[in-house]
This record gives sequence, structure tokens and C-alpha cells, in this order.
Amino acid sequence: MTSKHQSEIQMDRRLRLGMVGGGQGAYFGIVHRVAARLDDHYEFVAGALSSDPQRAADSARELRLDPTRSYSDYREMARLEAMRDDGIDAVAIVTPNHLHAPVATAFLEAGIHVICDKPLAVSVEEALALQTLSRSTGKLLAITYTYSGYPMVRHARELVTSGELGEIRFINVEYVQEWLAEPVEQRRNKQAEWRTDPERSGPGGCLGDIGTHAYHIAAFVSGMLPSELSADVVTMVPGRRLDDHVQVMLRYPSGARGTLVTSQIATGEGNALRLRMYGTKASLSFDQEHPDFLWYTPLNGNTTRLTKGRAHSSSGDHATRFPAGHPQGFFEAFAQLYRDAALQIAAMIDHRSIPECSKLLTTVDDGVEGMKFIAAALRSSANGGVRTAID
Amino acid sequence: MTSKHQSEIQMDRRLRLGMVGGGQGAYFGIVHRVAARLDDHYEFVAGALSSDPQRAADSARELRLDPTRSYSDYREMARLEAMRDDGIDAVAIVTPNHLHAPVATAFLEAGIHVICDKPLAVSVEEALALQTLSRSTGKLLAITYTYSGYPMVRHARELVTSGELGEIRFINVEYVQEWLAEPVEQRRNKQAEWRTDPERSGPGGCLGDIGTHAYHIAAFVSGMLPSELSADVVTMVPGRRLDDHVQVMLRYPSGARGTLVTSQIATGEGNALRLRMYGTKASLSFDQEHPDFLWYTPLNGNTTRLTKGRAHSSSGDHATRFPAGHPQGFFEAFAQLYRDAALQIAAMIDHRSIPECSKLLTTVDDGVEGMKFIAAALRSSANGGVRTAID
Amino acid sequence: MTSKHQSEIQMDRRLRLGMVGGGQGAYFGIVHRVAARLDDHYEFVAGALSSDPQRAADSARELRLDPTRSYSDYREMARLEAMRDDGIDAVAIVTPNHLHAPVATAFLEAGIHVICDKPLAVSVEEALALQTLSRSTGKLLAITYTYSGYPMVRHARELVTSGELGEIRFINVEYVQEWLAEPVEQRRNKQAEWRTDPERSGPGGCLGDIGTHAYHIAAFVSGMLPSELSADVVTMVPGRRLDDHVQVMLRYPSGARGTLVTSQIATGEGNALRLRMYGTKASLSFDQEHPDFLWYTPLNGNTTRLTKGRAHSSSGDHATRFPAGHPQGFFEAFAQLYRDAALQIAAMIDHRSIPECSKLLTTVDDGVEGMKFIAAALRSSANGGVRTAID
Amino acid sequence: MTSKHQSEIQMDRRLRLGMVGGGQGAYFGIVHRVAARLDDHYEFVAGALSSDPQRAADSARELRLDPTRSYSDYREMARLEAMRDDGIDAVAIVTPNHLHAPVATAFLEAGIHVICDKPLAVSVEEALALQTLSRSTGKLLAITYTYSGYPMVRHARELVTSGELGEIRFINVEYVQEWLAEPVEQRRNKQAEWRTDPERSGPGGCLGDIGTHAYHIAAFVSGMLPSELSADVVTMVPGRRLDDHVQVMLRYPSGARGTLVTSQIATGEGNALRLRMYGTKASLSFDQEHPDFLWYTPLNGNTTRLTKGRAHSSSGDHATRFPAGHPQGFFEAFAQLYRDAALQIAAMIDHRSIPECSKLLTTVDDGVEGMKFIAAALRSSANGGVRTAID
Repeated sequence: MTSKHQSEIQMDRRLRLGMVGGGQGAYFGIVHRVAARLDDHYEFVAGALSSDPQRAADSARELRLDPTRSYSDYREMARLEAMRDDGIDAVAIVTPNHLHAPVATAFLEAGIHVICDKPLAVSVEEALALQTLSRSTGKLLAITYTYSGYPMVRHARELVTSGELGEIRFINVEYVQEWLAEPVEQRRNKQAEWRTDPERSGPGGCLGDIGTHAYHIAAFVSGMLPSELSADVVTMVPGRRLDDHVQVMLRYPSGARGTLVTSQIATGEGNALRLRMYGTKASLSFDQEHPDFLWYTPLNGNTTRLTKGRAHSSSGDHATRFPAGHPQGFFEAFAQLYRDAALQIAAMIDHRSIPECSKLLTTVDDGVEGMKFIAAALRSSANGGVRTAID
Repeated sequence: MTSKHQSEIQMDRRLRLGMVGGGQGAYFGIVHRVAARLDDHYEFVAGALSSDPQRAADSARELRLDPTRSYSDYREMARLEAMRDDGIDAVAIVTPNHLHAPVATAFLEAGIHVICDKPLAVSVEEALALQTLSRSTGKLLAITYTYSGYPMVRHARELVTSGELGEIRFINVEYVQEWLAEPVEQRRNKQAEWRTDPERSGPGGCLGDIGTHAYHIAAFVSGMLPSELSADVVTMVPGRRLDDHVQVMLRYPSGARGTLVTSQIATGEGNALRLRMYGTKASLSFDQEHPDFLWYTPLNGNTTRLTKGRAHSSSGDHATRFPAGHPQGFFEAFAQLYRDAALQIAAMIDHRSIPECSKLLTTVDDGVEGMKFIAAALRSSANGGVRTAID
Repeated sequence: MTSKHQSEIQMDRRLRLGMVGGGQGAYFGIVHRVAARLDDHYEFVAGALSSDPQRAADSARELRLDPTRSYSDYREMARLEAMRDDGIDAVAIVTPNHLHAPVATAFLEAGIHVICDKPLAVSVEEALALQTLSRSTGKLLAITYTYSGYPMVRHARELVTSGELGEIRFINVEYVQEWLAEPVEQRRNKQAEWRTDPERSGPGGCLGDIGTHAYHIAAFVSGMLPSELSADVVTMVPGRRLDDHVQVMLRYPSGARGTLVTSQIATGEGNALRLRMYGTKASLSFDQEHPDFLWYTPLNGNTTRLTKGRAHSSSGDHATRFPAGHPQGFFEAFAQLYRDAALQIAAMIDHRSIPECSKLLTTVDDGVEGMKFIAAALRSSANGGVRTAID
Repeated sequence: MTSKHQSEIQMDRRLRLGMVGGGQGAYFGIVHRVAARLDDHYEFVAGALSSDPQRAADSARELRLDPTRSYSDYREMARLEAMRDDGIDAVAIVTPNHLHAPVATAFLEAGIHVICDKPLAVSVEEALALQTLSRSTGKLLAITYTYSGYPMVRHARELVTSGELGEIRFINVEYVQEWLAEPVEQRRNKQAEWRTDPERSGPGGCLGDIGTHAYHIAAFVSGMLPSELSADVVTMVPGRRLDDHVQVMLRYPSGARGTLVTSQIATGEGNALRLRMYGTKASLSFDQEHPDFLWYTPLNGNTTRLTKGRAHSSSGDHATRFPAGHPQGFFEAFAQLYRDAALQIAAMIDHRSIPECSKLLTTVDDGVEGMKFIAAALRSSANGGVRTAID
């Protein structure tokens, strides 16, 4: 129960962050903003939140941006922010896939660091051009392969690197979801619309949207990239214009083998990114829906559940904010109480009625009951454990 | 995959938040600040972070507080903040237990809302006085019973309220940890020192520190408070001055029964708050180390794993930020990438070398590999699934 | 994959086994007979299967007993079997509780070994008398505390004995079921009738029926018996004549503590016997509904899932019939195929139609498909993994 | 808690069973014999347990076969048994794979029913010939695809058949083990020797040994056979003569897809046969290492854990011997007590010392403690729950 990891990461300033995309109704903009805020390393100060000027302005107001730093054109944003003394240090790109490359290009060329959602681009050519540009400008082009941020994924990588698994022989990775099992893109689901539209998503559907995550985590943990594959890229839902189910067999230069399945028609699956790796000495298993745990089994041995905060490695510890037993998500539960309190306090300040949704906030009344419990327990125990009234 | 829950909670301003306690080396101050920041409803502007003036000032600087709003005396802070036009709307109290009541009293009397860590106080008398004061001043006195913030705990409560369990007959709750299994308070563990010191913790050790959480969650979900108990309050570690293991049997006015175990010498347990409730029609089980899930079993039926984002209720949805499959903690993984990017960008701006700990950040190079994978998969599939080079 | 454990237990003869109770409609007679048959150490040759002569005879016929060795009076059975040269070596007692002591007495006095279901008797006095008799006659009086037969329970015991847990501080045991959550004894449930009848069950209901199992497994694994208890013995279902819910706090001579819950109104629970033990060095957890596994966690360490066939100890290995990964129950799946084949073969011999229930038996047709699969897989792989017809 | 399922399967006679293979040191002979004995439908009366005459005779003696019905040549056994009035009704074949077809042929031609281990044969041609022979002789040729005997596998099949899953879109099946991860066939492991020898195993190694199980269970549950596959059949361990890792992609006539992985170099895996099926309406998941459970998730719904004894279907119930909560394997725990009692009783009869390994048998002493517990609990509860001595 120490604050070691937190204190390791103190910075002497907040970076100024801009965002392209992520306006009203855009799911992932919120995720990026919360993530940027969590460790207090960024200040969100500018945005081209939508290409629609009205929506851009409305979104900026809702997010309390300075109106003079709300843009509707990302090129203008790149140009003007680069000229300001207090211009943004970095930009987060959360647009549909087809804009990743042009937006990233504009900001890199303006000398601004880039944090871009995946996939990087819509073609290998675009991607290679960005790689070249990032190198020539000396600016960071980070890709948010989210799952590599979990402590236990980083710990897994260290186990492999340190030779704990021996030589890897077989990698089994899958990323399967159910949310496109029906033709929801024909039912005004905005997220589904652009993800099944080759104009905005590029040539891969499920393949680009989540397949790249599966491909990346396997490489991230194993430290190996395959050299060959055999693939079956399928569209299961009639009328859909991009793939929604993909199964692939992989071969690695070392002779290792792999299978990769990615699907968005996998009924009953939420966001199931699962990785297993089998080496000559031991195997590993990780499931992102239970991200605090990593299962490790040596040859002929028993399985150990490596747990965030209990299993230590330098990269895993760097990504750990809590001691063992506080699941990833403890912050959110805590934040919920702060959210509910904010809703109540704001209402009280404004002489409005307390919002119904905030009423489960625990208050002094709950605190009083806790004190009564302590007092009664101490009295009972002091009297040989007799039954004692709680009052 | 919608932003419904997020958008529901938009506020038109951030509240101004102060903090008492939580300076350097104080574990829980960080948790409160992150929680306050997560949903962007608060701005942290003032603090009495330590009673030691130097440490208070150092902590304030580290947290980028305006030095004129860093105090070393909480009474002064209450007085001065109450006089400012831009004074704090609310204060978070994260001191050891014995200060909860005096600090809360000072701020409530100054007309400032209070968010206080648990337990509320060190005696029933103090607690009742605070209850009276909160009512007479009309100010909020919230207690952070963290675990009531989990969506599935709130969902559980709704299931009980709506009668899904029938009449409750038996409640089994436990909160067990291992961290005091050895006399760590004699080994300079600051967290252990004050928690085993009756002067600072009050008369309950384990009982007050985590027993109150167990007691609260049982009441929160069941809607029932017990009327009688039989307790065995034990100190297992020789030389310790407060209890570290407590077992209690409960009786409810309805005739229902309960057992409550709370222990800090439970070897191998991290932060195991587990609740089970058995009614005449169905039972529930929750484990805070797996907070996305709630297990529900009707009489003679099969068990269903109710999952955050899949099982809907108004209070559960209010506390949900993500669709199913994105575990509580997805934010943290995402935030890790932002943290690593911040470390790298700041280093690049300052012409320092990139910190080692940030080097797992995924970048354009990873993005390029993803694009190569997509392209190869599409080629293989288009050619009857033949083995195809990834290049 | 060795037959080591099996061969260790070869005996040079089968013992001759008799049974008292366990006639038609008696659930547990079947369990005892299957258990006796499984390792082929017993031959079932005599019985007083019911006190009703007709039912005794019918049951004997159904079980293919020699009619001259089917008795309706257990005293006569004891007397006559003791006189035969080929008389039974041992008797299994599977009657309601109130008959355990008189029947066991009759057979012990006749010089016949006894295997008796639990609880041993209906009073401490009866039990002590049996203890004395067993010693004076030099005959075995075994009690079937079933759960001590699991390999991982025996392994747990060895871990404790060998000091792996250090000094035990806390034992948490529960045995909870749902089957008496409703007044089924008023609905002609024969099992429930005698178990809720003090005349046949003795003074404990749930307490005797399953509470004794919980009490025993805690003692068996820990090697400790408690010296004091505080109990709340409850009847939850109106009109029931014996307890159906019991919660107990325990104190051990060493200063260790324990809690024991046993309930038959625990909605949604099947047969949940769960044991956890916390020592100064490590803790253990066992759940009989997942009997192949034992969870072990050292202080400040990660949890290891000790698995039948992987975790070795002399007493655990003695009770293991299969290598790891073959769950307890693999035999039953296998036996199912033999059952289905028997039903089909018998029908074919008798020129009857094949019973519907046996028709899922896998046959040559399934075998042919398997061979086609092998051949196609080899062809595809030999041709660079091209898609290949299975025919 | 009824004996319904047991009583359903009463037969009016035991079948006479013979066995080919399965002599001393042969692992699977034991499994077949236990399985045949469990439900008491067979009497084991004849065998050609080894082709080595001495080993055949020794094995027969150990298993208490009539010496005149112990054969060293299976052809002679088929001929002579067919001539006896009390000849065997059925033969179990548990030899290495290459003998399956010739032995089965001999017995079928002799008019004797056959229960054969898998794979059926070493080539498609042999298999088809057996299919023809089984039909022309009208004799049963059962294949022991063990896993189809689990109640929850049969229940899964009924769910599919009844349309609960909608149209199947994706099947993911794997059967992975670790036991050939090292070249154990070069270290005198008899099981490994013949399984890696193409002369005795046929052309498939892992493919035939366990791949056929995976292939079968997918077909058994889904009711579908694939029409095409792409395979990568690999030998990972240097010097091995047959495959030990196989990955396959499947296409079904309906357009459904599948992946099948079978491996014997999967470090840390015991006997992991796992099946998942995704339909348009719901999905299923089964893991044979947890055979009492089947996981079912409807589209956009919560996951239900269907449990043996709770989830009912005609074929599942037919294969169920116990109420819910009694895991597959309860019989084995029970049998262990009978085994230990047999060892003790036999020793007592022979005036030998009690074997050490049997000494955990629970006896009258344990029974006495149970009675003391009941009495103390009743006393404490009757006295307001006061702490009460157990004596």
C-alpha cells in the first residue's frame, strides 16, 4: 500500500493537448479525454472536434474549450496552433480511419506530436509514408493499441523476454465481439455505419477495427512477427460491405505456429481479446475481460495466477496504480461517488432538486450506522460474544 | 457502443474542490484526486495537505496548487476559503480517522460541502453530532464507501428492491486482506502505523478500516440493517494494539440471519470484499475483485452471470461508462498509453532522453505492421487461403 | 499417463459386502454400491435392503442378489451371515440416522466390519458406545465422510501437516444447499421427510445431515478440533420440525478462530462444501463442486491452482486414478458409452428395438468421419495448406 | 435428490464382456474396465490381454479371469468365444491403433458386438470396410468418443438441435495437451512410444490420437460436418516421426466457418478439450476439464452457466447419475473410502498391518466428534448463542 508507482510519474508540467474528431456522439473521443486526464499529465485546450462547424462549436462549448481554439478544419488547427506560444504540444486523432493519415501528416508537418487511434491508416503505403515522416520530423506518432497498457500484458512481455517461456512454439490469439452479429449499420448505428463502409474504414472491416489489436498484442508479448499467413476473410451478415469474421493461420520465422481469429459476429462475446502462448518451458494465458490476471503454467507444473500488484516486473509496475486486490476499475467506482457528489452539490448550489440518479451517494447517515456497528461489535466481544443490540 | 451514459452526466461547470490530508506519501489522497478528475466535474484548487507546513507546501507545489491556497491549518483553510468569491465548493477529507469529525465540522460550519473518507468518526457520539450538523447546515456530508460505486453493486441493490430475490433469509459478507498478517507497523509502514494506533484510528482497527465497508455493502444492497450481533473481536498478531480479525453473527428484524468476517491477517487475500445474499426466490453473489460481474441464481435454476453493460438497471447504468466487455479498468490501460506518451513528449520538448519506463508505448512502427497484416490477410483470402508472405 | 496408482491398489481377492437399507427408491444405496464396485474390491452378496419384506425381496431381485441372502431383518442377517463360511466380510449401513447405531452394533457384535453413512448416531452417548464397541471387537467402523476421499482434500491435509501454511489462524467452512428452501417434506419428498423428522434424524436437521460433513472436513484438513463454539441454530421454513440453517463461530485451543455455516435453504446452491484456511505462511481454498483443484497462496505471493495429478503427495496420489486434465468424472463419461452400448447390445440380443435414450452412442459411422478428417488434413498440409475437400 | 436416472437404466442381466489389449501396464484397459463396471451392466469374463502369452496369463490372473478364457491370440478368442454357450456378448478393443481394424473384423465376423477405442482404424479404406462389415453382420461397432458421454455435451447437442442457437456461424474447437512437449518417446514412455510410431499409430500422430476427438465433438454437438479444410500439420519436437501440433481452418456447406487446433506440445495443458459454437441467436462454450458446466449466452444477453442436474434435456438427463452440485467425480471420492476400507478390512482378516496409504479412512472416531459438535451447537443456540465448550 504505497504510492510508489504514482510518485514515479510526477511531471513538472501538464502538456497541452488538442483533439481532431471526438465531438458530440463520438464514443472514442471521451475515452481519449478521460485517459489523458487520469494521471493529470495533459490539459485539453484545443480541438477540431467535427468537420461540421456547428457541431464543432457545440462540442467545444460542452467541453469548456476556449472558443478561439475550436476549429472546424484540422489543417487550420495545425497551422494556427503551431504559431502560438501556448500552442498544443500534442494532438489526439480520433476520426474514422480514412482521416488518420492526412490528419497525422498535417500535424507532424506542423511540428506537433501525434497520438493516433488504430489502425494507423487505410493502406500500407500511407502507413509507410507516416513512418518516414515521423522519423524525418523527429516527432512522436503514438498509436493507441490500448491493451498493451495493461500491467499484466506488460508483465507477460517481460516473462517472454526473460526466457521464462523458453522458445515459443504456438500462439493462439483471438479478438471476438458480437455487436455486428446483426445488420445494425442499417439501423442508424453510427459506430457501425462507418466501420462497415470501405470509404471510411479502408479495405479491412473487422480486420482493421479489432484484428489489428489481436495482431499487435501477439507481437507485443511474444516479440515475434509472423512471416506467412493463410487467411479466410468472411462477410457473414448479408449485405455488409466489409468482412465481419476472419480466421488466420500464422507461421513464424522460428518455425512457431499461430492462429488468429477476429470476429464481430461472435454472439455473446463482449470485447474478448484473449492471448495464449506456449513455449518449450511454460505457457501464458491472458483475457482482457479479466485484465488483473495472467495465468502461467510451467511444463508439468501447476498453474499460477499472476496478479497485478503481486507479480512484479519493471514494466508491469510502471503501469500499476494500485496494490493487489484493487482491480483495474477501483478508480471508476471511486469516481462514481465523486460524480454523484458533484451532481448533488451543483444542484444544492443552484437550488435545484437533487438528481434522482445521484441518490445512491453514501452520506453521513451511512457513516453513523458504521459507527454503531463498531461499537456493538466491541461490546459483544468484550462480553463473551453474547448477542448484543445494535443501537 | 454509445456515449449515452457519459452524456447523461454533462455538467455546465466544474466544482472547485479542496482537500485536507493527502500530501506526499499519503496513499489515499491520490485515489481521491484521480476519482475527482476522472469525469471532469471538479477542479482541485486548494488544500491543507499536511499539518507540517513544509510538507504541505511541497505537496501543494507538486500538485500545482496556487501557493496562496495551500494551508497548513484546516481551520484557517475553512475560514479563508469560505470568504473567497472563488472559494471551494467542497472539501475532501483524507486524514487519519481521528481527524474526520473535527475537520468535517469546521467545513460544514463554514458552509462548505464535505466528502469524507470512512469511517465517519471515532465514536457514535461524534457521528451523531455530524449527522445533526449536516442537517442543520444543509450541506452534504458524503462518505466514500467506494464499493457502492460499482455498477453491479447498484444493480444488485435494484434486484433486491424490485423483489427478484424474494424475502432475504441469509447474508454472508466478508472483507479480508493479508497486509497486516505480520507486524508491519513495527517496520515503518506508515499506513499500518496509524491504522493500528487507537489514538488515530479510534477503538476499531480492522473493524473500522474495512469492517465498516463490509457492513455498509450488506446494508446498501439488502436495504436491511441488523438489530443484533454476536461478535468475536480478535488481535492475532502479538503486540498489536487494535483488532486484526473479527467474526460476527447477525440477526435482522425480519428473522433473517447473517455472518460478517473481516480480517487483515487473511494470508493470500488482497482486498477481498465478497457479498452473498440468499432470498426465498433467488440468490446473488458479488466479489469486488471481479467487479464487472454479479452472479444470480433463482431457486432450482441455473446461475446467470450478470455483466456490466449487459444487465440493465437505472442505477447500474448511471454508474457505467463503457459497453460490456470493457472491464472496469479499460480507462487505466488507455491512460497508460497517454502517460507513456506524455513522458516521451515532455522529454523530447526538453531535449532529454526518453525515460526507459515509457518505451513500451506503441508507435507508428506498430501501426505499419498492422497495415501489413491486413493487406496480407486480404491477399491470402482472395487467393483461396494460400499461404502468403507478410511483407 | 501411467497406471501407477491403479496398480498400487491391486488386491488378491474381492471382499464380500452386505448392505442394510438402500432398497428401491433409496438414493444413497446406489451411491454406496457404485462406489464399492468402482475399484473392484468388493462383491455385493447380501442385504437387508428394506424392513418391508416385499420391498426387500423386490430390491434384492433387481440387484441380482441370491434370494437366500436377502433378509428383511438386519439382526437375522448379522446372525446368519456370521455363521456362513462365505459370509460377508463387511456391511454397509445406509439407513436413516436413527438406525445407524443399532445396526452397527448388531454387526460389530457379530464380528463383521462396518461401513456406516454419517452422522454416526443420534446422540453423543450412542456414538461413544459404538466407539467402545469397535475397539473391544477389533472390527472396523468406517464412516463415509465422502469429501475426505477427494485427492485434493488429502493433498490439502498434507500441506498443513508438512507446515506449508505455518500456524493456522482462521478457518472458514460452509456447506450450503437449496433443496429444503421450500417445505418439500410436505410434498411427498421421501428424502426430505425423514431428514426433517426428529424421530428418524435425531435432534439435528441440517446440522446432522451436512453440518457434520463441514465440521469433519475442517478437522480433517487442519488436524485441529475446536474447543468452543457460539451457535445460532435456526428453522427458516415455517412448520419445519428441525433446523435448516445454522451459523457457528469457533475457537480453537491454539487461539485460532473459525466460522461454520451450514444451510439447506441457501437458494441457488447445489452441494456447496467450501473450505478456506489461513495460516501465518499461506492459505488454502477448496470447493467440492470443483474437486480437482486446490488454491494455494503464500503470504504476499501469487495464487497457485494445485491440480489433481499435477500436485503430488503420497495421500493425494493414493486417491488419484487419472493423470491431470482428466477430471474427476471422466469415468462417468466413459461409463456412459458403455451404458449406451449395453442397452443397444441387450436389445439386439433380444430382438427388441434400440432404446431411444441410448442412440447417441458413437459408432463406426463416427469413426469413419474421423478417418476422413485425418486424411484430408494430411493432404492439405502436404500441399502448402490449400483448401481441401473432406471426402 | 431422486434415483430416477439410475432406475431408468436397470437391466435384467449383465452382459458378458471380453477385452483385447489392456494387459499389465496398459493405461486404457483400466479405464474401459472401470467404465464397464460402474453401472453394473457388464461382467468381465474373457480376454486376449496381451499378444505375449506370459503377460496375457499374468494379466488375466491379476484381473481374476477364468484361465481357460484367457487367450494370447485374438483370432482364437473370437473363434472359441463364439462357440461357447456362455460366450462373450461384446468385446472391448483397447490395442494400439493399427490393430483396431483387424481385431474388430475378427469379432464382427464371429458375430460378437464390438466396442472399440478411437481412432477406428489407420486408413479411410479400413474404416469404410468396417462400416460395411458392421452393417452386413448386424453387429454393433461402437467407438468410444468419451467426451460425448458427458451430460452437458449431450445437453449442448439438444440446444443446437432445438434451434436455441439459431444458425451456426462459427465453431472453435481445440484439444491440447502438454505430455509430448519433450521427446518422452525416447525415454521409455510406453504410451508415447506407440503413439509416435507410424507403424502402430497410422499416419496421424496427435491428429489421430486426440484430433479425432476434437473433430467428433464439434460434429456431435453441431450436427454438421465440414466440407473443406486448410491444414498445417507440424512436428515440433525434433526427431519425432509423427505430427504433434496441428492447426486447421474449416468450411461448412452452410457457409459457417471453423477452427480446430490439436496439439500435444501445449505446455501446461492437461487434457484441454474445449468447444465453442456461435449461432445467429446464441453461443455455447464447453470445457471438458470442467465437465459439469455449459456456458450459454444469447445475443446481447447475459451468460448462463448451465449445470448438470439443473439444466434438463432428455439426453442430458439420461447421462446424469447425480443431482446438481455433486460433481462428476463424486463417485470417485466415495469409492476412495470404500477402497481404503477394503485395504484395512483385508489386512485385518489376514492379520497384516494396516497399509499406510489407507489410514485416512474416516472412522467411528470422526463420527464421535461430529456428534459432539451437534450437541454443542444445539446447547449454545438454546442459550442465546453463548460461547459453549465442545466436549
